[in-house]
Amino acid sequence: MTEPLVELKHRLREISDLGMAARILEWDQLVMMPPSGGAERAEHVSTIHRLVHDLFVRDEIGALLEELRPLEESLDPLSDDASVIRVTRRDWEKARRIPSELQAAMSKLASEAVEAWVRARAESDYASFRPWLDRTLELKHAYIECFDVEEPYDALLDDYEPLMRTSEVRAVFARLEPALRDLVAAAPTPVDEPFATGTYPRAAQEALSREVAIAFGLAESSFRLDPTVHPFCLSLGPSDIRLTTRYSEVDLHGTSLFSTMHEAGHGLYEHGVSPTLEGTLLCSGCSSTLHESQSRLWENVIGRSLPFWRWFYPRTQAAFPEALGHVPLDDFHRAINRTRPSFIRVDADETTYGLHIILRFELEQELLFGGLATADLPEAWNARMHELLGVDVPDDAHGCLQDVHWPSGSFGYFPTYQLGNVVAVQVWERLLADLPDAYERIERGSFGEIHAWLRDSLYVLGRKLTPAETIARVTGGPIDPEPYLRYLGDKNAAFAAA
Amino acid sequence: MTEPLVELKHRLREISDLGMAARILEWDQLVMMPPSGGAERAEHVSTIHRLVHDLFVRDEIGALLEELRPLEESLDPLSDDASVIRVTRRDWEKARRIPSELQAAMSKLASEAVEAWVRARAESDYASFRPWLDRTLELKHAYIECFDVEEPYDALLDDYEPLMRTSEVRAVFARLEPALRDLVAAAPTPVDEPFATGTYPRAAQEALSREVAIAFGLAESSFRLDPTVHPFCLSLGPSDIRLTTRYSEVDLHGTSLFSTMHEAGHGLYEHGVSPTLEGTLLCSGCSSTLHESQSRLWENVIGRSLPFWRWFYPRTQAAFPEALGHVPLDDFHRAINRTRPSFIRVDADETTYGLHIILRFELEQELLFGGLATADLPEAWNARMHELLGVDVPDDAHGCLQDVHWPSGSFGYFPTYQLGNVVAVQVWERLLADLPDAYERIERGSFGEIHAWLRDSLYVLGRKLTPAETIARVTGGPIDPEPYLRYLGDKNAAFAAA
Repeated sequence: MTEPLVELKHRLREISDLGMAARILEWDQLVMMPPSGGAERAEHVSTIHRLVHDLFVRDEIGALLEELRPLEESLDPLSDDASVIRVTRRDWEKARRIPSELQAAMSKLASEAVEAWVRARAESDYASFRPWLDRTLELKHAYIECFDVEEPYDALLDDYEPLMRTSEVRAVFARLEPALRDLVAAAPTPVDEPFATGTYPRAAQEALSREVAIAFGLAESSFRLDPTVHPFCLSLGPSDIRLTTRYSEVDLHGTSLFSTMHEAGHGLYEHGVSPTLEGTLLCSGCSSTLHESQSRLWENVIGRSLPFWRWFYPRTQAAFPEALGHVPLDDFHRAINRTRPSFIRVDADETTYGLHIILRFELEQELLFGGLATADLPEAWNARMHELLGVDVPDDAHGCLQDVHWPSGSFGYFPTYQLGNVVAVQVWERLLADLPDAYERIERGSFGEIHAWLRDSLYVLGRKLTPAETIARVTGGPIDPEPYLRYLGDKNAAFAAA
Repeated sequence: MTEPLVELKHRLREISDLGMAARILEWDQLVMMPPSGGAERAEHVSTIHRLVHDLFVRDEIGALLEELRPLEESLDPLSDDASVIRVTRRDWEKARRIPSELQAAMSKLASEAVEAWVRARAESDYASFRPWLDRTLELKHAYIECFDVEEPYDALLDDYEPLMRTSEVRAVFARLEPALRDLVAAAPTPVDEPFATGTYPRAAQEALSREVAIAFGLAESSFRLDPTVHPFCLSLGPSDIRLTTRYSEVDLHGTSLFSTMHEAGHGLYEHGVSPTLEGTLLCSGCSSTLHESQSRLWENVIGRSLPFWRWFYPRTQAAFPEALGHVPLDDFHRAINRTRPSFIRVDADETTYGLHIILRFELEQELLFGGLATADLPEAWNARMHELLGVDVPDDAHGCLQDVHWPSGSFGYFPTYQLGNVVAVQVWERLLADLPDAYERIERGSFGEIHAWLRDSLYVLGRKLTPAETIARVTGGPIDPEPYLRYLGDKNAAFAAA
């Protein structure tokens, strides 16, 4: 290695190690910390984030990146070294535009606003949260000012989907909205599911969840599975994946199974990133859309398919004999694929989910740029929910207060959830072209080839390519909603026919 | 607050937050990390330690400390602010003497040497570990060179027992050695303990362990108790105490109970440090001796006493009916207080324990300064074990390879374990003078007053005073082995009479 590359990697290692420390502090806070331990924790995390920022934006890193341009140009662009130089430069140029004081102010506000939101949501008291939302919007405008973008929302989107344009999202969502509304309208009427409420003992859920995560391809020695209120996945490197899940013991739809498959999908992505990227800033999934495409692929495309349950239902019945012993596979499969408009995004089915996202994508732009006053948010939310999903929101806790994203300042995040659903099916179609017997494999509980295909086509790349390049490389083209709409239409048709 | 004090505290907060991150990485590694997660972990921790060192030794901190001298002198020396300035200055002056390269080399060597030792101990292969010990001794000499000390071992001792002199340890141990040998010789012959091997289900152990930790005074919302191979206690602040323990299900002496009481003692100390010291470098126990005095006070002085078991034995019998249901209290109490020479320090009883320490204190000085070649260590170890304890060491795994301290470079640590035993009884005698009915309280399972006395006399001080000042403040004088020897003698006499 040349001297400047050694020096760059040394600095990135330091920054990456610090980032790891911040991540483990966050995981610990949500999963392990005793209740009284919280007062100082946000402070510790924000100190580490500030140090990371300060170490990263130094002139010396820019100088090294300049010095390394000729080396970068001499290497295969997909090589680790060329990628590290290129992607780090993009990250550095972006980070340099954000003043430390603004970064610190956003981080401080986010942690206070989330606290205020927790209280407000518990009491469905939007008014008490509104001042925090106002302040968050102000800081978001200051943040956008740091960048030179085509339209202002692009700057927010870029935090989750680097280099993506708002206009691209708008085009995809314009196609999705009417199509999803038609699909919802045409969906088979949900049938009775007496078994949805039943006895689902936690220990059995946990055993099944572990079994599935391992069957999908997570090495047993490389992950943990712990309970939390809001399931998430966090990686401390490809060999240390932390999944969390939740266990309702009385509600089939709240059992850990789908939540675990979802987080296992995120975990498999991180687990598959090339370990040669450890210690750089490239050793993680490429973007929120791509990450969500993998959680959804494993949870929905595979995990709600009939072949999967042909394999897994007998052992699920054995685990919950009281609740499911006498329930036929087809009834169970129909229940876990029901389409039913509801208030809460995270509980939404595959078809209505996109409409929840479209609403948020619209409203966050209106709040920021469209003149929607925060005072009018609940009304706008409820009206649009009625329009899109035909439901009447009973209170703000089930409406505009339900998500942590706005309180935490994560404007620009929501659309990537739905883009993930779309890309999941694009990836799956491509996989089916290469592995036409994928469904037969799933029916045998054999996921090795499927996992290997995804790992070698996508996971291993980490952040080497841009999201658009990565999507093009894996699916052969840009984001395209048609496969996803076909997939939902086929599901509807199958259930209508059955 | 004056401007420089605000600035100093801001910098100390940053350093303290980073230290917290390192601690949680270490805790996680030992308690939570999936087995494959280890490769990079030591690297992360050592990066954080290096950053802490770099941030701390900066000239600016020295300048602030100089600037704050007049303020310090104007304040009550026991006030938080005066203490922070004074103790931070001592820490800073010490840290400045250690070159970053040496610090990094020691940290790197320690992590490699510990790995080599784990393998060597598993195969009782001292020869494979010897080169690591040689290199460790070399670096220890380089470390000692950084300081200006009366005798070289003082520099090592200072890391665990700030400002203590080797000559003081030598004087205490010179009194202890013959006295302990006499006590061992005079101890009642161990009787049969058929119940030492039995059925001790883990869940019942865990419930009892939690009950004891809470009864002693740990707030339920402020601690965790997790299983590990080698029990330890780690604090992330007074309201976040992490105890670990181990569960043998077949061996009474390997159950979690005494291990938990020991770690709870450490935890109670950290739990009681004044929260106003959070974010400084003073928010922890004062020294290794004082820390061990508290683990031993709760584990041994209280936890092996007859009054304690008059309270706790009935519920212990109820928890282990098969193993203990028919065992009288006196037999149980005698078993947990037996004196029996053995090979392994951590399993040693209260009377023989000190002789294990004296051996290590002698041999580590001989290795460093007395011309004992590492090649001759096993022979010297085994000969001295025979002399002190009358046992013949079967192999090096049960001899000079048993402890992690030398592999990890912790020369100077061992003596503080035994000084802790000594100070525990001094503290206890002082407590008895103020709370003459302490044993009656224990017999009722009422620890509130005892805990409050210890907290208010000792724990709350944190690192404000030097260890010697702290010991003098709590016990009324310097370290004194007589109370400890009386305590052991009284135990012997009680069992001989029974």
